[in-house]
Parts: sequence; structure tokens; C-alpha cells
Amino acid sequence: MPQPGQALVRLREHLHQTRLLGSISSALYYDQNTVMPSAGADWRGQQLSLLASQLHERQCSETYAGLVAAAEAEVDRSAPASTRRNLQLLRQELERQRSLDPQLVARLAAAQSRGNAVWQEARRSNDFAVFAPALEELLQLRREQAAQLAPIEPAGRSPWEILAQPFEPDVSKDRLQELFKPLSEGIPPLLERVLVSSPAAAAASSPSAPAVAIPEGLQENLCAELLESWGYDPSRCQRSRSAHPFSCTLGPADYRITSRVVPDQPFSAFLATAHEWGHSLYEQGLPRGDDHYFPWPLGEATSMGVHESQSLFWECRVARSQAFASRWHGRFSGALGSDPWGGSHSFWRGLNPMRPGLIRVEADELTYCLHIVLRFELELALVEQGLPVSELPELWNRRMGELLGIRPERDAEGCLQDIHWAEGLFGYFPSYALGHLISAQLAESMEQQLGPIESAVGAAEESRLQHWLSENVWPLGRSVNGEELVAQVTGVPLSASPFLRYLSGKVDRLLESS
Amino acid sequence: MPQPGQALVRLREHLHQTRLLGSISSALYYDQNTVMPSAGADWRGQQLSLLASQLHERQCSETYAGLVAAAEAEVDRSAPASTRRNLQLLRQELERQRSLDPQLVARLAAAQSRGNAVWQEARRSNDFAVFAPALEELLQLRREQAAQLAPIEPAGRSPWEILAQPFEPDVSKDRLQELFKPLSEGIPPLLERVLVSSPAAAAASSPSAPAVAIPEGLQENLCAELLESWGYDPSRCQRSRSAHPFSCTLGPADYRITSRVVPDQPFSAFLATAHEWGHSLYEQGLPRGDDHYFPWPLGEATSMGVHESQSLFWECRVARSQAFASRWHGRFSGALGSDPWGGSHSFWRGLNPMRPGLIRVEADELTYCLHIVLRFELELALVEQGLPVSELPELWNRRMGELLGIRPERDAEGCLQDIHWAEGLFGYFPSYALGHLISAQLAESMEQQLGPIESAVGAAEESRLQHWLSENVWPLGRSVNGEELVAQVTGVPLSASPFLRYLSGKVDRLLESS
Repeated sequence: MPQPGQALVRLREHLHQTRLLGSISSALYYDQNTVMPSAGADWRGQQLSLLASQLHERQCSETYAGLVAAAEAEVDRSAPASTRRNLQLLRQELERQRSLDPQLVARLAAAQSRGNAVWQEARRSNDFAVFAPALEELLQLRREQAAQLAPIEPAGRSPWEILAQPFEPDVSKDRLQELFKPLSEGIPPLLERVLVSSPAAAAASSPSAPAVAIPEGLQENLCAELLESWGYDPSRCQRSRSAHPFSCTLGPADYRITSRVVPDQPFSAFLATAHEWGHSLYEQGLPRGDDHYFPWPLGEATSMGVHESQSLFWECRVARSQAFASRWHGRFSGALGSDPWGGSHSFWRGLNPMRPGLIRVEADELTYCLHIVLRFELELALVEQGLPVSELPELWNRRMGELLGIRPERDAEGCLQDIHWAEGLFGYFPSYALGHLISAQLAESMEQQLGPIESAVGAAEESRLQHWLSENVWPLGRSVNGEELVAQVTGVPLSASPFLRYLSGKVDRLLESS
Repeated sequence: MPQPGQALVRLREHLHQTRLLGSISSALYYDQNTVMPSAGADWRGQQLSLLASQLHERQCSETYAGLVAAAEAEVDRSAPASTRRNLQLLRQELERQRSLDPQLVARLAAAQSRGNAVWQEARRSNDFAVFAPALEELLQLRREQAAQLAPIEPAGRSPWEILAQPFEPDVSKDRLQELFKPLSEGIPPLLERVLVSSPAAAAASSPSAPAVAIPEGLQENLCAELLESWGYDPSRCQRSRSAHPFSCTLGPADYRITSRVVPDQPFSAFLATAHEWGHSLYEQGLPRGDDHYFPWPLGEATSMGVHESQSLFWECRVARSQAFASRWHGRFSGALGSDPWGGSHSFWRGLNPMRPGLIRVEADELTYCLHIVLRFELELALVEQGLPVSELPELWNRRMGELLGIRPERDAEGCLQDIHWAEGLFGYFPSYALGHLISAQLAESMEQQLGPIESAVGAAEESRLQHWLSENVWPLGRSVNGEELVAQVTGVPLSASPFLRYLSGKVDRLLESS
């Protein structure tokens, strides 16, 4: 292996320090959401803002630009592809940072902070009018951002597409529409089958079904057992409690995941733990083996869609599988000292409710993507098709009725439910649906090579599945984009078909009598 | 109140950012000792070292020196005393920082890190020779440090005294010898009384007495009850677990304390919680009411001795008191479902073991200060009286025998037991003993004004004691040094008499039959 030249060494040192600063922010964020007393919030905000401005300065500075340019001059076509790719990604990010007017960056930060505050208020008081001006301002600022970035983007990229690039590199509207159309056409009939064909299944997940309550301590123990069975190593990863489950990376050998326990939702913490563990496993498996890789962009996640595919794989393909339910039904019943489900088939049904609901974060596997289709359409309309902000609630409610058959009665349960727009985050939602599609398509390839996932899970051999992901998916890092990753691993372009096949098969089996 | 001038405003802004950076380090330190997985240590070390160098740069920079000078020029004799005192303290610290050769600072940091590592090894293998060269190097570097600082110190201050200034401003060897002499003369006879006069008391605290084990969860609950009864506000302070109990301040409204639970030491977590809460209460009560005071030195602790006096007050004067034992004996027995102590007098004795031991951190209230006298003598001998490092173990063992009547058989339980010297910390130990003296003298004044502490505790009115401290002690911050604080609050100079009176009275009562 050729020795890196002096310019690359200096660049690496700069990136290493940038990474140290960034990970300090992550540590403060983690503390804030797990332990920090509430009165500490103001000071913590000031600490984070100080670090953010230090980071921004490092990433835009003339010094840094000089280091990148010197490294580019040092690296020729004979250099390893990984080196050239790293420099390409660094150059792209540098140009993005430098294309933005610092005044716009500051106005955006302030508008995001205001947006979050008025959104909280609007949601509490169920009053969209309180939030509308902030949303209008955020849209305007994001359009300005897209316009400032346009000159360095490939020709023809639309404003929404430009905003979505950081989450899903090279994504386009047309491609998303092509991928999502089969979802909005294929999922409603499946949902209809569940709702009309099987009163038993509908009842099992209906609000009138008696909730099974599992005490906090028992849920904690079950989550710990789950992670232990999946190879959780407490010397590299720690678990905590937080209001909303999340996973984060604090250093090349320091991972954290959190969960929250809801006593009368017996599977909430358990499935969230599976989900966050999937995110963390991916981060733990990204190419940073010798540490030297850590500061470089190639050691980062391919895209948000790929990240989500990894969490969904462990949550949906494994923890919600029938074979997994068979194995864990006994542990849940044993912990409770009784079997409120009446058998493992019902227990499995309990893990897989399928019923349309108003709230995205509570949605099941079957209906989740319809929530995303709705948001994608509305974002496009808001950002680049001239939809007046004032008409958002009505359009939201109408499309919700068309896609899911239910309409919110309150905007708090409609267009005010998510935090994303309140922080000016446009272009992020599609990654959630892409995660489902990517997970399903990767799973089909995995099954072609390893045999049925259900069989591996039935034999308690999840480590084989993990090994396959660690060999085929995790090492790619940012050497490719999400679609390229799927094509490279599965041999065919990404499509919705594997996901729809999977859903259809699962609905069939759920509707069988136990 | 006069408006601060522009130079003061700019200085304050600089200090505010310094404080933000410093408190980020504290947050990382807290995380490291409570949650961080062990594999994260290397990266965390790099983060802390990056912040340390940023902090050092800020505190020595020409920019900062200019801000201090401009503020000094702006402030005249008509300015508030607090402003002038703040500038005096900042100037003193700035001159100290600037007097030190940066190369010495770097060599010290490296030697401390190496010292810690070889000390761990030496202690594990009980081999002083492994540690001796590192100790020799640290002593040499600290002597150099003292020499570099000498020109800005008052004439006649000795090297050890210069090193002790950051912990105990204005401290002198002569004064410490004067304060400690009554301890080394007065404590051994008290100890003798305990050991010979009362086989019952000796037995209650002897290793052969059956240990009372309290399960972890119950100990946690008792600690939580204790803090709740003392006004713990979870919106400003959070508790965690750590290997060694500590307390720290992460922001002007963000306090943390930790404890560890040892199942067969029924009072270890409980008393440590009381101790750390005392430290935290003091920090919470330092003058920073309107936040504007927070970045200024006046809002810092008076001295380490005063800090320790506050933790010892709550641990020893309150939680080890007879009235407190009477109130809590029932709660402990209730939690256990039995009374292994056989009555509240024995329970109180259990809270107050009095028996010479080899290990400082396990020492009781009666013998603790003798451990400090030993270390103070030996530090003076090492730093400025030419004691060869190689002779330390023998001298330690001999003086231990003279002071406490016991001799360690292994250096691991002798001169290798503390971390302080391994990190080149000379001049710190006396503050622990000063804490006992200060706590006792403040307590006498408190009792003159409020009546017996035992009565207040018996009536569950600890809030009255807290209020007294909050009125008389906490607001002083760094407006005075430790001795001045005591003289100002109690009207007489600090002495060992109140502490010895307190110990003597306590021994009397402990030796009474129940």
C-alpha cells in the first residue's frame, strides 16, 4: 500500500480534529437527551452553538480549503480509488459550504430555532395558523439555499432535489415517484384485505382489544436479553433511557442506543431496541477498522435510506418475524408469569398490528410508507409547486383520506405532527420509505444466498444474517449512493416489488387461522 | 448599580466562552465516569486533550491579556469591590499561566499521564520501585514549576506553599503545622479511649462483626429518600452511578452527583450521597443568581478546604448524628423488613465506626485527619526537604505506626494507595483535614445562633441548617480565602479546638451504653 503524501497526512489531521469536535457535540446531545436536568437546557444550547460555530469555521476556512487543494494536487490517477473518492466527497461538501452566504446560514439557524418553538406551541394548541408564518419563512430560506447551491449542482436538479442531496445522494423526484407509485397502488388493497377478510386480525389490533401491560423492569430485562442474544458488547455500546428512542455514535469505539418503556405497550421498547440496535450495528460495521479510516467520508453511512434499511431489517424482518415470535413468546409469557396472548400465533399478530392510523411514528409496517408518500407529495407542492402554506392542512387531510381512508379531525394529528418541517427539514422523509424498500430487496438477496430468514431466526442463527450484512452492505460506506449499493449487492435496480411481495406474503400468513 | 464599561463587557464575553468550553470538558468527564463504554476511553482522551489545549490557549492568549489590561484600565477605585476583586483574581491567574514555560506545561502533562499509568501498575504489583522514577520526575517538574512561579509570588513562599496555592489560597506551612499539631496530639488519646474502654464499640466496628447487607435497589431507594428529604430538585440536579462517587457542575443550572452501591456496606452509598450532596449544594449556592456572575472568579468556591467542609457537614454533622440515626433507623429497618442492628443506638454506632485502618478513603471521622498529617509531612519532606524517593516507603510505614498504631505490610496499602502523587498533585491533601476543622468551627457558630444541630435534625429541620449556610457561607465565593471566611463567619481565627471538642463529645456518647 502506498504511503500517503504529506498533504494527505495534514488533511487527515485536520479532519480528525473536526471529527473530535463533532463527536463532542454528539456526546453533549446524548447527555441532553438521557440525563441532563431540564434547567440545564439553556447552557447546553450555548455549548452546542459554540461547537457548531467552531465546526462551521473549520469546514469553511481558507486553511481547510488549502489542505483539500493541496491533497488534490498530490493525488493523481494512480492513487487508490478510495483516496480519490474521499477527496471527491470532501470537495463536494466544501463547495456546498462555501456556496452558502453566511448570513443565510445564520438566518436559517435562527428560523429553525423559532420554527421549533412555534411548532410546539401550535401543536399544543392545535392551531396551524400559529405555525404558518414560521413555515413560510423556512420554505423561503430553503428555496434561497437551493438557489445558492444550484450553480455547483448538476444541471436540471430541482430545488427540492438539491435540498434532499445530503440525506440521499443523487436522489431525483422522478425516480422517487417511480418507486413510490407501486406503494400507493399496492398497499391499499392489502390493507383492505386485512380489514375486511379477517375480523380476528382486525380485532387483535383494534383499540378495543385489551392491552397487555408489562411492567417496566420486565420490559427492560427483555430488551437486555434481546441485545445479549444479538451479540451486544457493553464495552463498546451503552444503553440508556430517553423520551424518544435514538442511536448515536460518540467515537470510533463508542456507541449508544436509547429506548423508552411504555408499560401498556408491551412491544414498544422491545421493537424500538431492535430498531436502534440495527442503526448502531450499521455504524459499528462501517469501514473504520484501523481507526485511520474514521475521519474520512468513506467511513460514513451510504445514505439515510440505507441507514434506515438496517434498523428496519432488525426490527421488521427479524423481530417481527413468525419464527422470532415463536422463540420469544415463551420468554415474554415466562417473564409475565402468564400468557395473555393465548399462544404464539396471537403473540406474533400482536407484534404485527395492521390498521390505518393518523400518526406516522405509530404506523405499522403495512401502512407506514403511505405516510411518507403523503409527505413527499406535499413537500414538492410546498417547496416548488407554489402550494400556499395556508392550504396545507386541507390538502393533507384530503390526501390522507385518499391514501389511508381516514382523516384527522385536528391538525395536531395531521400536518402538525412531525418535527421535520418545523426545523426546515425538507427532503428527508423519503429516506424512511426507501429504508423499507432497500431492506426488502437486500433480504431477498440474502435469502437467495443463505436460505429463508425465518429458518435462520428459527434456529437462533441471527449471527449468520448479521455476518451477511457485515460482508455485503456495511463496508461500502460512501463509496456508492443508496441505489448503487442496492444494485451492487442484489444485481438489479432498486424497486418496490420485493417489499410488496414481502408484505403480501406476510398478510397471507397473518390472516391464516392460528 | 453602575453599568459595566465596554472593556468589562468584552472581558465578560471572553470568560463566558471559556466557561462554556470548560463545562463541556466537565460534561465529557461526567459521561466518561458514568456511562461511557470502556472502549471509548482513547477517543474521549483525545476529545478532552483537544478541549484542554483550546482552554489553555484562551487563558494565555495575547487577546485575553489585552482584555484584562483594558478592563483594569477602565476600572478605578470607585468601582464596586467585587469588580476589583474579580480583576485581581483574573490578573493573578493570568500571571501564573504566563509565568510557566509552555514546554514545562507539556512535560508535566506527559509525566502526569505516565505517572498515573506506572502507579496503577506499581499498585497492582505492590512494587514501589516501578513507581519511584515517575515520582522522582514529577517532583522535579513540580519544583521547576514552583521556581518559575516564585517571582510573582509574595516573598518567602516555599516551593510546597506555591504548589498548594491553587487549592488553598494564601496557605502556609507554619499555619498548617500550627493547626495540625493539636490533631496529632489530641486524636490518638481519643482513639485509645475507644479501643480500650469499650469492647462493645470496638466489636461493633471490628471486621469480625457480621456485615449488614442491603440489596442494591433498597440502598438506591434510601439514597433517593435522603435527597428528597433534603430538597433535591431533579430539574437542576441528576444522580448517576459511577465507580467512585463524585459531584460536578456542568452549567449554572446543571449539577450532577454520583454514588456507588456496595451491597455489604450498608452505609457506603448513603453517606457518600450525603457527602456529594454537600459539595453540590455548595456549588448550587455559589453567587451566580442572575447567571451574569457565573463566568467571574468570585462565583467560584472559596477553597478546596471550604468545599470539603460543606460535604463533611452533611455527611458527618448531619447524616452521622445521633438524631439522624434515630430518624432513619426505622426507615432502614423497614426497607430491610428486619432490624439487624438491634435498636437505634447500635444503628448510630454502625454509622460511626472508629478504628484505625491503613486506607485513607475508608478512614473514619476520628482517624481521618491523621492520614492527612502523615501525607503533609511526607510531601514537605519530598518536595523541599530532600527526602530521597527511595526512602519514602520506610518513612511512611514508620510514621503510620507512630500516628495510628498500625503499619502496612504492603506498599499498595501504604504509600502507593492514593492517586494524588501519581498525578503530581502536591499541596492538595491538607484541604481534606481543613474541611473537618472548618466544618466543626462553622457548626459551633451555627449552634450558637440556631441551637443544637441535633435538635434541628431531630425535628427534621435540616432546611434551617441549609438556610444558615446559604446565608453565611456560600455567598462569599472567592471574595475571601478559607481562613478569612472562617474568621468572618465565626468571629475567631480557625483552630482545631472545635473539631477536637466535637470528636471528644461524640466519643463520649458513643461509649455510653445504649
